[in-house]
Amino acid sequence: MTNRLPRIADLDAASAGWGFFLCARKEVRTGRSGDYLAIVLQDVSGEIRAKVFQEVDALKEEFDAGEFVKIQAKGNAFNSQLELIVDKIRRVMPARDAAEGFREEECIPCAPRPVDEMWAELQGRLAEVHDSQLRDLLMRVVSANADRFRIWPAARQVHHAYRSGLLEHVLKIIEIVTFLADAYGARRDLVIAGAILHDIGKLRELEYDITTEYSLEGNLLGHIAIGSAMLRDAIRDTPDFPARLALELEHLVLSHHGAREMGSPVEPMTLEALLLSTADELDARMQQVRRHIANDGSEGPFTSYHKRLERSFLKPSAS
Amino acid sequence: MTNRLPRIADLDAASAGWGFFLCARKEVRTGRSGDYLAIVLQDVSGEIRAKVFQEVDALKEEFDAGEFVKIQAKGNAFNSQLELIVDKIRRVMPARDAAEGFREEECIPCAPRPVDEMWAELQGRLAEVHDSQLRDLLMRVVSANADRFRIWPAARQVHHAYRSGLLEHVLKIIEIVTFLADAYGARRDLVIAGAILHDIGKLRELEYDITTEYSLEGNLLGHIAIGSAMLRDAIRDTPDFPARLALELEHLVLSHHGAREMGSPVEPMTLEALLLSTADELDARMQQVRRHIANDGSEGPFTSYHKRLERSFLKPSAS
Amino acid sequence: MTNRLPRIADLDAASAGWGFFLCARKEVRTGRSGDYLAIVLQDVSGEIRAKVFQEVDALKEEFDAGEFVKIQAKGNAFNSQLELIVDKIRRVMPARDAAEGFREEECIPCAPRPVDEMWAELQGRLAEVHDSQLRDLLMRVVSANADRFRIWPAARQVHHAYRSGLLEHVLKIIEIVTFLADAYGARRDLVIAGAILHDIGKLRELEYDITTEYSLEGNLLGHIAIGSAMLRDAIRDTPDFPARLALELEHLVLSHHGAREMGSPVEPMTLEALLLSTADELDARMQQVRRHIANDGSEGPFTSYHKRLERSFLKPSAS
Amino acid sequence: MTNRLPRIADLDAASAGWGFFLCARKEVRTGRSGDYLAIVLQDVSGEIRAKVFQEVDALKEEFDAGEFVKIQAKGNAFNSQLELIVDKIRRVMPARDAAEGFREEECIPCAPRPVDEMWAELQGRLAEVHDSQLRDLLMRVVSANADRFRIWPAARQVHHAYRSGLLEHVLKIIEIVTFLADAYGARRDLVIAGAILHDIGKLRELEYDITTEYSLEGNLLGHIAIGSAMLRDAIRDTPDFPARLALELEHLVLSHHGAREMGSPVEPMTLEALLLSTADELDARMQQVRRHIANDGSEGPFTSYHKRLERSFLKPSAS
Amino acid sequence: MTNRLPRIADLDAASAGWGFFLCARKEVRTGRSGDYLAIVLQDVSGEIRAKVFQEVDALKEEFDAGEFVKIQAKGNAFNSQLELIVDKIRRVMPARDAAEGFREEECIPCAPRPVDEMWAELQGRLAEVHDSQLRDLLMRVVSANADRFRIWPAARQVHHAYRSGLLEHVLKIIEIVTFLADAYGARRDLVIAGAILHDIGKLRELEYDITTEYSLEGNLLGHIAIGSAMLRDAIRDTPDFPARLALELEHLVLSHHGAREMGSPVEPMTLEALLLSTADELDARMQQVRRHIANDGSEGPFTSYHKRLERSFLKPSAS
Amino acid sequence: MTNRLPRIADLDAASAGWGFFLCARKEVRTGRSGDYLAIVLQDVSGEIRAKVFQEVDALKEEFDAGEFVKIQAKGNAFNSQLELIVDKIRRVMPARDAAEGFREEECIPCAPRPVDEMWAELQGRLAEVHDSQLRDLLMRVVSANADRFRIWPAARQVHHAYRSGLLEHVLKIIEIVTFLADAYGARRDLVIAGAILHDIGKLRELEYDITTEYSLEGNLLGHIAIGSAMLRDAIRDTPDFPARLALELEHLVLSHHGAREMGSPVEPMTLEALLLSTADELDARMQQVRRHIANDGSEGPFTSYHKRLERSFLKPSAS
Repeated sequence: MTNRLPRIADLDAASAGWGFFLCARKEVRTGRSGDYLAIVLQDVSGEIRAKVFQEVDALKEEFDAGEFVKIQAKGNAFNSQLELIVDKIRRVMPARDAAEGFREEECIPCAPRPVDEMWAELQGRLAEVHDSQLRDLLMRVVSANADRFRIWPAARQVHHAYRSGLLEHVLKIIEIVTFLADAYGARRDLVIAGAILHDIGKLRELEYDITTEYSLEGNLLGHIAIGSAMLRDAIRDTPDFPARLALELEHLVLSHHGAREMGSPVEPMTLEALLLSTADELDARMQQVRRHIANDGSEGPFTSYHKRLERSFLKPSAS
Repeated sequence: MTNRLPRIADLDAASAGWGFFLCARKEVRTGRSGDYLAIVLQDVSGEIRAKVFQEVDALKEEFDAGEFVKIQAKGNAFNSQLELIVDKIRRVMPARDAAEGFREEECIPCAPRPVDEMWAELQGRLAEVHDSQLRDLLMRVVSANADRFRIWPAARQVHHAYRSGLLEHVLKIIEIVTFLADAYGARRDLVIAGAILHDIGKLRELEYDITTEYSLEGNLLGHIAIGSAMLRDAIRDTPDFPARLALELEHLVLSHHGAREMGSPVEPMTLEALLLSTADELDARMQQVRRHIANDGSEGPFTSYHKRLERSFLKPSAS
Repeated sequence: MTNRLPRIADLDAASAGWGFFLCARKEVRTGRSGDYLAIVLQDVSGEIRAKVFQEVDALKEEFDAGEFVKIQAKGNAFNSQLELIVDKIRRVMPARDAAEGFREEECIPCAPRPVDEMWAELQGRLAEVHDSQLRDLLMRVVSANADRFRIWPAARQVHHAYRSGLLEHVLKIIEIVTFLADAYGARRDLVIAGAILHDIGKLRELEYDITTEYSLEGNLLGHIAIGSAMLRDAIRDTPDFPARLALELEHLVLSHHGAREMGSPVEPMTLEALLLSTADELDARMQQVRRHIANDGSEGPFTSYHKRLERSFLKPSAS
Repeated sequence: MTNRLPRIADLDAASAGWGFFLCARKEVRTGRSGDYLAIVLQDVSGEIRAKVFQEVDALKEEFDAGEFVKIQAKGNAFNSQLELIVDKIRRVMPARDAAEGFREEECIPCAPRPVDEMWAELQGRLAEVHDSQLRDLLMRVVSANADRFRIWPAARQVHHAYRSGLLEHVLKIIEIVTFLADAYGARRDLVIAGAILHDIGKLRELEYDITTEYSLEGNLLGHIAIGSAMLRDAIRDTPDFPARLALELEHLVLSHHGAREMGSPVEPMTLEALLLSTADELDARMQQVRRHIANDGSEGPFTSYHKRLERSFLKPSAS
Repeated sequence: MTNRLPRIADLDAASAGWGFFLCARKEVRTGRSGDYLAIVLQDVSGEIRAKVFQEVDALKEEFDAGEFVKIQAKGNAFNSQLELIVDKIRRVMPARDAAEGFREEECIPCAPRPVDEMWAELQGRLAEVHDSQLRDLLMRVVSANADRFRIWPAARQVHHAYRSGLLEHVLKIIEIVTFLADAYGARRDLVIAGAILHDIGKLRELEYDITTEYSLEGNLLGHIAIGSAMLRDAIRDTPDFPARLALELEHLVLSHHGAREMGSPVEPMTLEALLLSTADELDARMQQVRRHIANDGSEGPFTSYHKRLERSFLKPSAS
Repeated sequence: MTNRLPRIADLDAASAGWGFFLCARKEVRTGRSGDYLAIVLQDVSGEIRAKVFQEVDALKEEFDAGEFVKIQAKGNAFNSQLELIVDKIRRVMPARDAAEGFREEECIPCAPRPVDEMWAELQGRLAEVHDSQLRDLLMRVVSANADRFRIWPAARQVHHAYRSGLLEHVLKIIEIVTFLADAYGARRDLVIAGAILHDIGKLRELEYDITTEYSLEGNLLGHIAIGSAMLRDAIRDTPDFPARLALELEHLVLSHHGAREMGSPVEPMTLEALLLSTADELDARMQQVRRHIANDGSEGPFTSYHKRLERSFLKPSAS
């Protein structure tokens, strides 16, 4: 078995061979004579479920979720969904495996656009802000958090849950809210600021290092309160920042979930806050739906059921 | 008292004189020695509450809601809100009053943009539709309903509740959904079609003749079912209209309220249906909020409480 | 092993032998050394779960859900519920197996009453309608859809989910609403019409061919909108059909789920619509409860928990 | 002014004269120079609002809600609804006013059917119960409470809120549940018992003496708990009453509101309890709707808005 | 009329004379010949509604809500509730009226316990905190805000809506949560800190100067976010404050409404946060109920209906 | 393998040996070659999951949930949670196994405090009741039900679901409500009575004999209605018991779930009922949270997710 497996997006039931992947989740399940491993593998093109039936006791300790693995496996159709049956699996040894073609960046799920391109676009958006005090504030916040802002995911699971997903999400929201601000006579500067700042608290709510987890403060405070505090810290360092503008910015951060039952302690009271919360929810939803359609492997005109959105979606017709 | 009152938007507590208005609502209320009339007057610039204390028994029959009236009145501050105290009021006699400057169109609330300009924009949008079968269908629906489509309000009370409000609403939605379709890779033709068709049932759900009421079929069927039937009628008259496109169009009409509890019997299952329902809700909300802010006469940084949206809004600062 | 298995309703843990059944569902599940098949078998008397542990890879392709199968199996008590352990299973070969006693109609779940008897009752009900225009309309709708109306199930899973279940459901509703119409002075003709028409859209919402699935238009439009369109088509072909009667009929179809959150775009506004939606919900619920009690195999005075209705039910006492 | 006013159901704006009525509610409201009385008058045919503008201070103490009054008044159209403007009003002096035609029973709202006829029907229903122990129990409960059961209203305001309304409600429910029990194979004896017992607690929850109020125990315990206790008391006095039957009867009383959020501490777990709660809710709703339609004085095809049921209803067409 | 009116708590329908009060609310209402004033008067013992029918136009400008007034008035029973009919009313002239007995503090609603006594209790509670860093932090926050903390109300309307109401509320919560912390093995220091800090944001959310209004930041941010920021500011000024303790304190502030739909962006995740949110809700509710019962003037065993709590309450029996 | 296993609370992955436990639950699950047993074992120190893979068919009948078993087993880490893999298992033979150290009371989950100590505390609380009629009533109820009251659990699963859990729950509530009654001026006697009586119906709602199940009347009536009936029976046997006190006691029982959607047919209308429902909910919640934290075996600062409470909890820090 000397073939190398194709990327996940190109696998089918006839695929067989070896390859490098990120093991994103790993769980022991139980069968008659003991346990087997149910794992999730990822690469830059997507993710797939896999099962390991052999030497489970040994493998329990051999590798963990969040590590790169080398596997030997073959495709299998399971209730009309593709999975991999893994014959061998071990932790990647970076030095040695590089020779065989292991490239970390090819195993990590990541936003479709190159991060440098997105970062440049963000800089361009910042330069569009007319009010110089506001522009300076935003630039300072962005620079101070650049390392994380460039690569952070937007969530652990729901939407944009991959490398640089937060940046991708922010740019799309800027695109939408600037358009809507013009359409409804709202203030462009404010909606750009809101788009950049609204999820800034996620840089501390989440810990990201290939996999994503909630931090201690993330669980106890949530990204809305953390982001509000990060904004206040930045404003404190800005001499003579206008008090009312400061309030409106914090209102944008606090209200961006749109309703109290969604976790916003105050509800949108300005045109800009209304536009921001609409764009945020829309972008999260569109990303989920588009990804669900793209990943769907079911037959027939509709996708499989999407549990969070509680419905199936119509797949685009062939034509 | 020979002064003519200014437009409603320009009235203040010191205003006094005569003028022509539309009486939009009329109600009898009770005081110690009998009843008084509480009415709402409108002109093209807005609306205002007024009270009539004299000769109420006679006036009960003298004019009705939905009629133009000539009044003599003076401004009055009532709990920080402006109202008119009416001394004399009678039904307009068009022939005679025209000589004194009565112009029907100046007394009717109406969309801010000229209807001809909006209609031309709609034609331009129709021409943008690439698929010729779909474009023909839309043109046929629009032409067949042109008389109503040009002047119909979008609702009895909630939003765009004035002459040509539906057209204004549809154009704004087209502007938004075409932008969003490009942003998310959805089909432009379909979202334009959805924007034009989604409220088409309101042309029969509502009866509009200066004032707006629900029709018999409007109450029993609702504009979603009526619009769906109007679309089917139009498709039936179109030879060889593609079956799947027909289904997707009807899905756009049926799902445009976004959720079952909002009155949509099915929920959005395509990208285009998701974008349309988001844009529809956003435009309705933005129009309500902007109008509430514009009409607000209260002191302080916040508007009065908006009952339907259950909050106050921050007024733009002076600067 | 030359015994023939009894009907499903008569199986017990000591049963062993061969038999013919419909395989209604088929799913692969995972154990330590690979997968097994979890299937559901049906015949005219009920349904039962079964498991296949042998030659699973081969059997994955050997037969599908929706096909008739011949099996060799034995009973097994599993957490106090009866199941079958299948040793052999293959697709039925109709010609050959007929000789051994395979009868398609004995393997298909189906309403308890003979379809011809129910169809005759429906004709009798139609003849009871006094208004000749309405009676003609109903007869036309029923005749035009007779092939499907005779055999269609009322749902894919919830209630009356078997051959001729829709017809059984409609007849029971007619029985109830005519009684209630007399009790409350509502119009008999209208409630009969509502009972016949309310679910007519299910003839196109569902595809039924031994098993039941949602159609493309079923998913995108739902049976309420489809039924409303079918009614309109029929009325269009009826010269001089009274406009108000047409509206009331369509209102019955649109409002029959009783509330917007249940999927009705309008809520009942006539006595007849109130009675119809009450009878529809009652009959669906009673059928679920009676079937749940009848199929229950648990010990003790209460049935197992009914997930959809969120409770257990008291079983009738022995006496 | 020597005319006697017609019954309330026959009043119009031109009516003027004197008459005897029950004053059902009485409230002081405020006008510029002091207060006026807003009252509600009832007779056997219906109820109407009235206003008293004169000698209010004196009249505040002159009569109370719950007393019979003699008035002199004239009709008045107020926002398209009829009301009475009262010139004179005083408490009835039974001895003296009898000579002028005062009859208490003509001033009290009351069920449309004669109470003796309804009582006889109830006895007939009791005789239909097959199980002799159950029949004896029901007869004992009914006899012991006969004085109240004959005349009690079913509610203070919502439905059947008049003399003998409870009896009317119980009989209608018996009619429906016996029919439904036959239709669904449920036990006739049990549903008759449930219909008779379900609201028995209202005989102590409400105090009725022309007007209706909640009693102390009514507020603190509610009619469900009171009825359950009354049932237990009766069973305790019945030697050898079967334990399981006792439980099922109490379950019927406790679960008859159908759901916990409606005030039932347990939800229906038997066919009979499901039928009873459906029939109870249906009868309450039908009575409200029919009465709302009957009393409606608005123009156009729809009634005024029904606040509790949150909609308007279609009025029967003239034909 | 030379009598001085008694305190509000001691007024009855026979009271007549003059007195000094705070005018807490003032609204113009409409009667037949124009308008009257509906006002609310307060003193240290309670509040009462009053009406002014004379010289309304002049009085509209003569005094405002939030000012002290001298009135001449008499008691009046209005629908079983006491009110005042005001004959004369003017703004207080402090210098002159002091001579007649005007004392500002007697006209302002205020917590029942003396503020100095409550302040001393708070100091004692602070001293009970064992952890010196935490104790220092709390003392610093309390000192820095002492002026407001001594006199601030806890709300604009709902509960403890009077001078020093916040302090009263905090002390009662400390009493309860220290007891509960001992009962459930939670940390005493933390619950005391939570009780003191949880509503600290109200010192900036509300503006209080005899009457209470929301501030600009109060509306836009809410007291939970403001309080969280105040806590962070204080911690920043505390060298070496433990990071985990800081997180737990902020969690207490953020989660103290107990649920997201109540406005808390995170829900309680520690024993202390659970106890704090329970005690906060309980104290708010008990204060409302006790005050409602104390102020109730209705007859019978139950109070009038409490709109926010949606029920009546049983009044203590005489015995 | 001659080691005896430690108590459940002291097991780890390296544990191996034999021991005596209560088998609390037993379920058959399916693997490829047949079934295995998933069981739950308990002793006085806690509970643990275990699996039996061998001789399953034989063992299906060998012992049941609710029986004591002797096992031979070893520890196993499964998804970071400890479980036991059972090699041998058989029903305990009390006579023989006593010799090896089987003690029934060491295998039964039970409240942490000795029952005699708790019972004495309850007697002390009863003696604190001032009103002699009430004290006598409570003593009679407690004595009459002493056998069950001493050992009953408070629930089948949610909270205090072990031997004497109800008594523990009642004592904690008495501790809290007497404190709160003093804090808010409520009646001590009444809250003690409410604490003792509120769950008295659980003595008949649940059947407890090592394991806990709902009784027939428990399912059909629920503990609120049963408790109310038990209270009435006791009052009936008490000559001259004050009627109002009886009502208030029954109100405490009926309203103690605090809201109708929680199963209380009436909502708290007295201070005492408010305090009781608050304390009841608080104690149930605190017990769940404390137990969840105590039993948690996950890594990191937070517990695993608590499904019923829908969140994780912060574990106490090491310090």
